[in-house]
Amino acid sequence: MSKPKGFEKPAGVRDYLPYAAEKLRAIERSVLDCMSGWGYRQILTPTMEYYDTVGMASSTSDRKLFKLLNNRGTTMVLRSDMTAPIARVVASMLKEEPLPLRLSYHANVFRAIEEEAGKEAEFFQTGVELVGDDSPEADAEVVALAVASLKAAGVTSFKIALGHVGFLNGLLEDAVPGQEEIRETLKEGLLHRDYVGYRETLAGLSLSEEQREELEGILRLRGGKEICRQALELSGNPLAQHAVQHLSEVWDTLEDYGVAQHVMIDLTMIGDFSYYTGMTFEGYAAELGFPVCSGGRYDNLLQQFGRPAPATGFSLKTNRILDGVDGIKPERDLPVLMQYDAANRKLAFDEAAQLRGEGRSVVMRHVEGPENVLSDTIAREVRTGPLGPAYGEIRTYTSF
Amino acid sequence: MSKPKGFEKPAGVRDYLPYAAEKLRAIERSVLDCMSGWGYRQILTPTMEYYDTVGMASSTSDRKLFKLLNNRGTTMVLRSDMTAPIARVVASMLKEEPLPLRLSYHANVFRAIEEEAGKEAEFFQTGVELVGDDSPEADAEVVALAVASLKAAGVTSFKIALGHVGFLNGLLEDAVPGQEEIRETLKEGLLHRDYVGYRETLAGLSLSEEQREELEGILRLRGGKEICRQALELSGNPLAQHAVQHLSEVWDTLEDYGVAQHVMIDLTMIGDFSYYTGMTFEGYAAELGFPVCSGGRYDNLLQQFGRPAPATGFSLKTNRILDGVDGIKPERDLPVLMQYDAANRKLAFDEAAQLRGEGRSVVMRHVEGPENVLSDTIAREVRTGPLGPAYGEIRTYTSF
Repeated sequence: MSKPKGFEKPAGVRDYLPYAAEKLRAIERSVLDCMSGWGYRQILTPTMEYYDTVGMASSTSDRKLFKLLNNRGTTMVLRSDMTAPIARVVASMLKEEPLPLRLSYHANVFRAIEEEAGKEAEFFQTGVELVGDDSPEADAEVVALAVASLKAAGVTSFKIALGHVGFLNGLLEDAVPGQEEIRETLKEGLLHRDYVGYRETLAGLSLSEEQREELEGILRLRGGKEICRQALELSGNPLAQHAVQHLSEVWDTLEDYGVAQHVMIDLTMIGDFSYYTGMTFEGYAAELGFPVCSGGRYDNLLQQFGRPAPATGFSLKTNRILDGVDGIKPERDLPVLMQYDAANRKLAFDEAAQLRGEGRSVVMRHVEGPENVLSDTIAREVRTGPLGPAYGEIRTYTSF
Repeated sequence: MSKPKGFEKPAGVRDYLPYAAEKLRAIERSVLDCMSGWGYRQILTPTMEYYDTVGMASSTSDRKLFKLLNNRGTTMVLRSDMTAPIARVVASMLKEEPLPLRLSYHANVFRAIEEEAGKEAEFFQTGVELVGDDSPEADAEVVALAVASLKAAGVTSFKIALGHVGFLNGLLEDAVPGQEEIRETLKEGLLHRDYVGYRETLAGLSLSEEQREELEGILRLRGGKEICRQALELSGNPLAQHAVQHLSEVWDTLEDYGVAQHVMIDLTMIGDFSYYTGMTFEGYAAELGFPVCSGGRYDNLLQQFGRPAPATGFSLKTNRILDGVDGIKPERDLPVLMQYDAANRKLAFDEAAQLRGEGRSVVMRHVEGPENVLSDTIAREVRTGPLGPAYGEIRTYTSF
C-alpha cells in the first residue's frame, strides 16, 4: 500500500472552498431559522458515540458504521445520523423535560463506504425531531415543516411522497404470514423502486387472487387524497385500514397548512430506515433524481434509551441541495482593498475600522513604494481562480 | 469491561442542550462575521484526514491523535486542528490562487485523552490563517483581528501576551549550542510557566555569567514597548535581535490599530505548537485562568504540502469562551403557544404562518376539548427544566 501524498484526503470526504462554504452556511442559517419559527430548538451532540448504545440503535447497517476504539478499548462510532443521538439526549439529559419536545439540528454524519462507489463518507443533514406526540397532526406538522424548510433552503420545485409502513405490513401480514424473508424481498423491491423485481417475487408466491391483486394494486396507489379511499377498498386488513385512516387525517391537516399541493400519497413509500413505524415521506426536487429530504415516524426508538415515547421527524439531505439546487446565493459584497504606506497607516486603519463597523469587508495592503500600488483595474482582476474576483473597490492612502 | 448503558456517551465529549447550542451559535456567527469584515473567507475541511499527511504535519503529539482505519486499511485521524488541513487545501485545491490568502473557520477538533484527566476529546475552535505574507504587518493584523474576535465573542476584559520564538532560540544558540535536550527542558519550563523549574535547570548548567543573566533576564521581559529596548540590550545574538526588531514593528502597527492597550510583550511566550517559527501569542480573559485564544507564525508548514509560503494565524478556544465568559446572550423570543380545536385549525395555521413571516416563533397545540386547554399561567410555567420557560404568550382558537 502506497503512502498518501501530501495533498490527498481520504475517499468520500471533501473540502468546501469559500463559495461552497458560504452557500452551505447560508442554507444552514436559513433552514435553522425556519425551524426556529416553528418552535424547534437547536441541539448539538458529539461526533463520537458508543457503538453499543447509539451505534446499535441507529438505522445504519453495521458495515457502514465508522468504528474506532477509545483508549480503554471500548468501540465507538462516528454518528451516522442525528435521530439516535437525540433519542439518547431526550432520555437522559432532558428526561425531566415535559413532552412534547421540539428539537432541530444541523450536523455532519458519517458512513463507511466502498471507495469505488464514489459515495460520500461525510455529509451534512439539517433536520428536526418532534418527540412525545403520536397524533396525525404531529406527522402533518413535520411534513409541513419539511415543505417550509425546503423552500428556506432555496428548493423551489419539489414534491413530497407520503406513505405509511403499516399499509404494506398489513397486506403482507395476510398474504405471507411469518415469511420474513419474502417480506424483506418485497420491501427491498419497493424501496429501490424495482417494480419488475417486486412483481416477479409476487409471481413466485402461492397467493389467493385477492391477495395478489392487493399486493399488485399497491403499485397503483399514488396520487392525491382519493388514494386513501382506493386503499381502504383494496384491503380490509385492520393494520392497513388504520394506516390509511391515519394518512387521511395527515392529508386533511396538510390541506389546512396550505401545502397539500406539494404532497402526493404513495403507498409504495416505506422509507429506508428500519426504525420507522408509521408515516414515512421523501421529498424530490424537480432538478434532481434522488431525494432531498426524508422523514417518518419512529415510535419504538426512544424506549431503547429507557424513555418510551412516540416520535416523528425528518432531515434535509443538505449536501444534495448544496450541489444540486441553484437556490440560495450567499450574500457577499466584494471587499474593499485598502492600500496604504507607512505614513498613512493609522489613517487607513481608522477608515477600515469605520467601514467594518458599517458592515463592509476590508482587506489591508501595505505598499512600500509607488511601484507596488495596485491599480484599480488590476485589483479587480487580480484573483480569478477558484475564489473568484478579489475586490469590489480599491482605496489608496499613500503620500508617494 | 462492562457495556456502556443506553444513556452514556464517551468520555470527554458533550451534548449541547438548546441554551448552550444557541449561545455557541451566537458566538460562532458573531466571530465569523467579524472575520469576514477583515476579508477572511470561510472554509470547511473533512473531519477525517490521512495520518501520513495532515496527521503528521499537525502539532498534536502522536498519542493524542484519534486514529481509525478506512476500509482499505489506511490510517486516518480525526483532525486535531484546522491549521494543517488548511495548509493542505492552500497547497492543493487553492494552489492557483494568488497569495496572500485570508481564510477563516469554525470547526470541531479532536484529542485522544486520558479519561481520568477530565479533558475534552472534542471541542470547537474559531480562527483564521493569513497565508503568503511574512511582514510584521501581517502578524499585527492577526493579533488585531484576535482582539476584535474576542470582543465579538463577548469577551470584554482580556490581555494578549505577545512573544517570539526567535528570541529564546537566539539566547539558547549562544548558551547551550547543540544541546537539544536541555533546550527542550528550558522551553518546557517556560511553556508551563514553571519558572522555578526553569531556574533550577539553568543553575545546573555551566554558563558564563553573562549567559546566565540573559537566560534569567528573559523572565523579567514582560510589559509594554519598553521591553523591546530592554531585550535588545540583554542579548546581542543576531537571531534574538531580529526577533525583537520584528516584535517592535508588530507593536507599532498594533498601536496604529488602536489595540496596544490589550497587548503586553512577554518574551517567555513561546507558544505550544511545535510548528511556530516567529511571533506567538496567547489571549487571557480576566475571568479565566487559561488562554482563550492562541496563535503565531508558522513559516515552514506549507512547504510540507508542496507550496512553501509564510503564514500566520490564530484560533479562539471557543468552548472556553462559551463556558467561562458570560458575554453573548443568544437572542430568543419565547415562542407563542397557539392552541386550536379541529373547527379552528385552518384559522390557527394561517395566523401562525403570518406570525412566522414576521419572525416570531409559534408552537402549535391541538386540543380536543375544553379540559385540555392550557391556561395562560400554566403555559408560561409548564416547562422549568433544563430548557427554561416554554412560551412567552398563548393564543387560543377554540369554539368550546
